[in-house]
Amino acid sequence: MGDDAITIQGVGTLDGAGPTDIAFLTNTLYRDRLKSTRAAAVILAPVDRDATSLPRIISLNPYASYARIAQALYPQSIATPGVHATAVIHPSVHIPASAQIGPNVVLEEGVMLGERVVIGAGTTLADNVSVGADSLLYPRVTVYAECQLGERSIVHSGVVIGADGFGMAWDQGAWVKIPQVGRVVIGCDVEIGANTTIDRGTIEDTVVEDGVKLDNQIQIAHNCRIGAHTVIAGCAGLSGSTKIGRHCRIGGGVGIVGHVELCDGVTVSGFSLITKSITQPGIYTSSIPSEPHRSWLTTLAHLRALPEWLKRLKIVEQDLKKIKKGTPWLK
Amino acid sequence: MGDDAITIQGVGTLDGAGPTDIAFLTNTLYRDRLKSTRAAAVILAPVDRDATSLPRIISLNPYASYARIAQALYPQSIATPGVHATAVIHPSVHIPASAQIGPNVVLEEGVMLGERVVIGAGTTLADNVSVGADSLLYPRVTVYAECQLGERSIVHSGVVIGADGFGMAWDQGAWVKIPQVGRVVIGCDVEIGANTTIDRGTIEDTVVEDGVKLDNQIQIAHNCRIGAHTVIAGCAGLSGSTKIGRHCRIGGGVGIVGHVELCDGVTVSGFSLITKSITQPGIYTSSIPSEPHRSWLTTLAHLRALPEWLKRLKIVEQDLKKIKKGTPWLK
Amino acid sequence: MGDDAITIQGVGTLDGAGPTDIAFLTNTLYRDRLKSTRAAAVILAPVDRDATSLPRIISLNPYASYARIAQALYPQSIATPGVHATAVIHPSVHIPASAQIGPNVVLEEGVMLGERVVIGAGTTLADNVSVGADSLLYPRVTVYAECQLGERSIVHSGVVIGADGFGMAWDQGAWVKIPQVGRVVIGCDVEIGANTTIDRGTIEDTVVEDGVKLDNQIQIAHNCRIGAHTVIAGCAGLSGSTKIGRHCRIGGGVGIVGHVELCDGVTVSGFSLITKSITQPGIYTSSIPSEPHRSWLTTLAHLRALPEWLKRLKIVEQDLKKIKKGTPWLK
Repeated sequence: MGDDAITIQGVGTLDGAGPTDIAFLTNTLYRDRLKSTRAAAVILAPVDRDATSLPRIISLNPYASYARIAQALYPQSIATPGVHATAVIHPSVHIPASAQIGPNVVLEEGVMLGERVVIGAGTTLADNVSVGADSLLYPRVTVYAECQLGERSIVHSGVVIGADGFGMAWDQGAWVKIPQVGRVVIGCDVEIGANTTIDRGTIEDTVVEDGVKLDNQIQIAHNCRIGAHTVIAGCAGLSGSTKIGRHCRIGGGVGIVGHVELCDGVTVSGFSLITKSITQPGIYTSSIPSEPHRSWLTTLAHLRALPEWLKRLKIVEQDLKKIKKGTPWLK
Repeated sequence: MGDDAITIQGVGTLDGAGPTDIAFLTNTLYRDRLKSTRAAAVILAPVDRDATSLPRIISLNPYASYARIAQALYPQSIATPGVHATAVIHPSVHIPASAQIGPNVVLEEGVMLGERVVIGAGTTLADNVSVGADSLLYPRVTVYAECQLGERSIVHSGVVIGADGFGMAWDQGAWVKIPQVGRVVIGCDVEIGANTTIDRGTIEDTVVEDGVKLDNQIQIAHNCRIGAHTVIAGCAGLSGSTKIGRHCRIGGGVGIVGHVELCDGVTVSGFSLITKSITQPGIYTSSIPSEPHRSWLTTLAHLRALPEWLKRLKIVEQDLKKIKKGTPWLK
Repeated sequence: MGDDAITIQGVGTLDGAGPTDIAFLTNTLYRDRLKSTRAAAVILAPVDRDATSLPRIISLNPYASYARIAQALYPQSIATPGVHATAVIHPSVHIPASAQIGPNVVLEEGVMLGERVVIGAGTTLADNVSVGADSLLYPRVTVYAECQLGERSIVHSGVVIGADGFGMAWDQGAWVKIPQVGRVVIGCDVEIGANTTIDRGTIEDTVVEDGVKLDNQIQIAHNCRIGAHTVIAGCAGLSGSTKIGRHCRIGGGVGIVGHVELCDGVTVSGFSLITKSITQPGIYTSSIPSEPHRSWLTTLAHLRALPEWLKRLKIVEQDLKKIKKGTPWLK
């Protein structure tokens, strides 16, 4: 609803939007900001529809509506089809006419690219890697041999897909490397943040299912499986052979030990450690918020003293038992 | 003071310095090492001035004096002006005659470089990136479009500046990407360690102020602001929209949740988690030092048993209350 | 023992192996899987030798035997000697005829390469770097000037060796950079995982001894020394000047503060923090497994309340002391 003469050119926060921007309100708490915003229009929920007289879009999910409008205003990448003269491409590789291959890209034997794929400068795809249509690989990505990326992948700079998992056997005083001969297989609509690493499987594959979103600097070890539409925040680390269900939310800096399984719908709070399989959806946590250093030292000292406290508590209990035995007026 | 015929060619530790090296003493505890050092000269504080007869530089801040002397002896980089034949440079880019552009560098449309900038091999600067004078970018850095680096920046290999922040909206069973249209704006005299990532802002900018020093493998999410002269040690992770004040010291491996604000002068101990805003300068901690595995298991078991202990403590207290009621000699 | 007409072409898990694969059994618990496996042959321990009638290799260390057989079946890399036309190589560098230099590799002045070295696309070796024979550097590795890698190194994509350590002195309101003039010296048979970083020493060298295995995304700060045959799992971080002994096992996500020393044979559990030197071999831990969020909040509240509990326990003890003084029947 509103003035159809308005042209929206960009997005802004309620506080920062200019007269050609659209802003959004997702939290009624900030409703007051509608009064002072200079935005041309706002996106808001039905409950807030009367809180402004600005041109507005009413949405049951204002944040998602904002996402879609922003996508329309800022298209992810406008591919300029063509192959840069400096790209090094094996003769076996067919480049779709709609694809864009940047400078110094290296495509080894048997690489397969879908339509409208964009490959950024210096990215290297090793033998037989396949990348689905409409994918965008930013500069300086490395994908090791045989790995697969689905359609509409977004892969940020510094990502390494398919490096060897950390597998070795101890023998006669030294470690013997176990060849990592599985692949990494990634579904459609997956985004992978800068400098994240996903190791190839030891024998079978490491799998990332459709719609998974991975933030920066995440480590996913060999043989993991990450269920569809799960999101993992920055700096999390998954040890080998861990399986994560669908629609999970793994917080930043989380660690998950190897060979455990998380069912669908598990949320792990940031900075927590998972050491056992989880079979019930819900939120799991082990992180400890900071306090002033001195008071934390006291807490720590108490923590260390608990065995001593337990002894003292037991003595008190025994004394009381004796007293009660000899004391008729205590029941 | 000392023998002006001495020529210093390098630096060394007190134990390792050779006869053309200068060493330094910052901690009186190690004063004994002055006796055995083979250094040509030493830098020390007034309090230690008589602890050696070696040629010496007396400084109120021996460590800083050492830093400046070492900088003079080992200049950071001696730019060899010129553009390598393999660099891929958009015609719109002006390269100062004093700048050095390495092999396979990619400079896209509208990139702006200051005087004496050095760009290492394979580094990619996307559209409209600007880099201030006297900056040094090591090989294999990626800076996404529109981001800015101030003067005298030092950026190590593998750094990614301006990748998309981790923003998405949940809608009808899948995640919808929120375009990240802000920039990363970095002040002067900032150093960024290897493989650190700094995401661009969602709508407004991610900001790193003057003099900030970032170690390796740090993750800085979208919309963060890091105040001037703050230092952050390796592997720390900042979630989105976090603001850190000036002159803060963030330890290694620290996690900071999103949307909190740390005032100036806050120190966070390594491996700690910050979950709330901090308004008072000081040291904050939540990290737990290791102990032998078996004793830690006992500590953990006690921690888990605390609810049970509390019940026992309450029973004891109630018993005592009853006893005291019936016991005249207990005042 | 078995049918010598069998040809093994690959490896598989007991469950996944096909009729030309060899599988292995390392844990008697899974002995049942021998019944259903389709593998052509299995490797197993003497104790399990009679659990199958399949062709089999009996080994005292089935896992190591598997590793060696897999290495034979999947050779790490078959170097195709030659120098790609796009490589940028300083005239001072001698390339052995047996070496393979990929596209866009940059080898600066004085680089020394051993026989049969393979250097992947876009990898940059700065002045005077040396790489021992039979080493494999994957694409997009950076080694800063003067650093050394021993024979049979495996270095994965995104690794940065020899970036500046995080050293600075505080002086008059700003940080002054301390030049990092040591090197990184790496022994033989070392593997380094994707996006791991190892900083050069400040004055002396950062040292990684023979046979060390490093997983992905590890940060090793300046002046560290890692003893022979030590393994470190992903996302671990070592602060400056830390020394780790031989045959240690450092878990994923572990943090170790600076200037401490771990003796030989120390295991640190994943996600633990080491703040003091360790002089006895054994396992050390400080990590806390997650529990359901609500129960963890209770645990945390109890932890914070410990000072209050201690007061209550003391009151109880004092009361009892008084009671006992006035109570002849108690002892």
